[in-house]
Amino acid sequence: MSADWIAADWGTSNLRLWAMAGMDVVEMRSSDRGMGAMTGPEDFAAELTRMTEGWAPLPVIACGMVGARQGWVEVPYRTVPCPATPTLTPVPDDPGGRPVLIAGGVMQQHPPEVMRGEETQIAGILAAQPDFDGIICLPGTHTKWARISAGEIVNFQTVMTGEIYALLSRQSVLRFGLSDTQVDPESPGFQDALATSLSQPHLAWAKLFQLRAAGLVDQPDPAQATDRLSGTLIGLDLGAARANWLGQQVLIVGAPRLAALYDAALRQQGAAPVIGDADAATRAGLWSAWQAFRKDLS
Amino acid sequence: MSADWIAADWGTSNLRLWAMAGMDVVEMRSSDRGMGAMTGPEDFAAELTRMTEGWAPLPVIACGMVGARQGWVEVPYRTVPCPATPTLTPVPDDPGGRPVLIAGGVMQQHPPEVMRGEETQIAGILAAQPDFDGIICLPGTHTKWARISAGEIVNFQTVMTGEIYALLSRQSVLRFGLSDTQVDPESPGFQDALATSLSQPHLAWAKLFQLRAAGLVDQPDPAQATDRLSGTLIGLDLGAARANWLGQQVLIVGAPRLAALYDAALRQQGAAPVIGDADAATRAGLWSAWQAFRKDLS
Repeated sequence: MSADWIAADWGTSNLRLWAMAGMDVVEMRSSDRGMGAMTGPEDFAAELTRMTEGWAPLPVIACGMVGARQGWVEVPYRTVPCPATPTLTPVPDDPGGRPVLIAGGVMQQHPPEVMRGEETQIAGILAAQPDFDGIICLPGTHTKWARISAGEIVNFQTVMTGEIYALLSRQSVLRFGLSDTQVDPESPGFQDALATSLSQPHLAWAKLFQLRAAGLVDQPDPAQATDRLSGTLIGLDLGAARANWLGQQVLIVGAPRLAALYDAALRQQGAAPVIGDADAATRAGLWSAWQAFRKDLS
Repeated sequence: MSADWIAADWGTSNLRLWAMAGMDVVEMRSSDRGMGAMTGPEDFAAELTRMTEGWAPLPVIACGMVGARQGWVEVPYRTVPCPATPTLTPVPDDPGGRPVLIAGGVMQQHPPEVMRGEETQIAGILAAQPDFDGIICLPGTHTKWARISAGEIVNFQTVMTGEIYALLSRQSVLRFGLSDTQVDPESPGFQDALATSLSQPHLAWAKLFQLRAAGLVDQPDPAQATDRLSGTLIGLDLGAARANWLGQQVLIVGAPRLAALYDAALRQQGAAPVIGDADAATRAGLWSAWQAFRKDLS
């Protein structure tokens, strides 16, 4: 099976590339040289050349922060409500002898919101389920809750849960009381912190330091503190987004472990979410965008 | 006026020393070699010797994280309810030829809470106002809200507002949309974000990313975003601590600029706080502890 295009997910922290034959993956490669590690357009060109060594000069279809102002080429946002399938903007002069096309993000005016990359995943979901009507939850560094209806992104909301979790667990005083264990969504710590955070969001803020203090006042239990921190923050996330998911069909699209946490959290609150494959959604969304682009050209 | 003792506030990030004649300051010195920069007891001794060069070998009375497990000598916590005036524990062998006495912190079992340093400030306040009955708010890296009655610390609560503000403003994606300007507590941004955060704490979590998105969707206004971030976080702090301050006499003891933000925030919510001098409170608390220690010896 020989590849005929290349799918690229180029975010702030990572670059992931798939050599694709239609919708089938031929080979996958990844690097930690995301947008954040780049100082100018020539860096993007050099990194792409390095990472596609040995691959034919196939067109590269990319989504993510690569299209941001600090990215390779700034691709403008479209404004909701709009179809999810991103329009593609070519990088000038076919860098490295191949066409490179970058997907545009989506923004919202009131309240202000932006996304880059998630619109492509949503497009991938809608390619498979064109009649989906409900909420797509995309947990991650910045969790997105997108309301989908009639094949369009109607509106969306961002909660910085992943970034705040990383800052608190790695750099705040809480790091002294946490473990490296995986968060267990069935643990009493996760479940209890989640429920408390949802029912008393105004108190959640004060419960963070108690995670540290508990280990000084009593026997430390770093695994439980880790479960509780995760439950507290995901509870705040679900609480902020409640108007989005309550009574709605919810599809979770994210890294498997994180998706499992949001799944458990939503189930505790009476929702019945379905989990989708995030990487498959990205590739399918890039494929849709690429098909639409070629159709427009022809 | 010649000094007869040395007051030391030795926290995680800084060391501040005052050569004191009774309650009067003769000379002040400071360094950025807090507990966090120390690798063992000999570091503390060396830093104290360096910083007191030229001063007579007077007794040093110290409070703060210097008494923590990772500090110079671990001084046990007392448990609330307890008097604020800390008991002092000597560092063995009079390092550098002078007695060094370290104040112990205060803890609470349910919910778990700890403080080191703030108890000394509270003791200083109570030395001047022994009949104070109400709440002492000590804003900082970890804001403390302490309930004071009958000369004792009855209970307290910690909110990690300062630390989270620092992490979000310096290390999260929000840093791209903020300014270095001082937060203006009278600005519409601060006042509005504060009120919203208090009335809708469950939504505050989702308003953080909007501070960044607003600058991408519309004209950036970094000063307003900074005011709003501060208002949002202080609003969450006040919301978490509302049961403490509502209808109570509130005394704010903290760095002047930060105290002014909490003062404006509490006034917006109908409280009538009074601001106290934090450094004077520290010195007076250390003096009280030193007096009590000498009385016990005699």
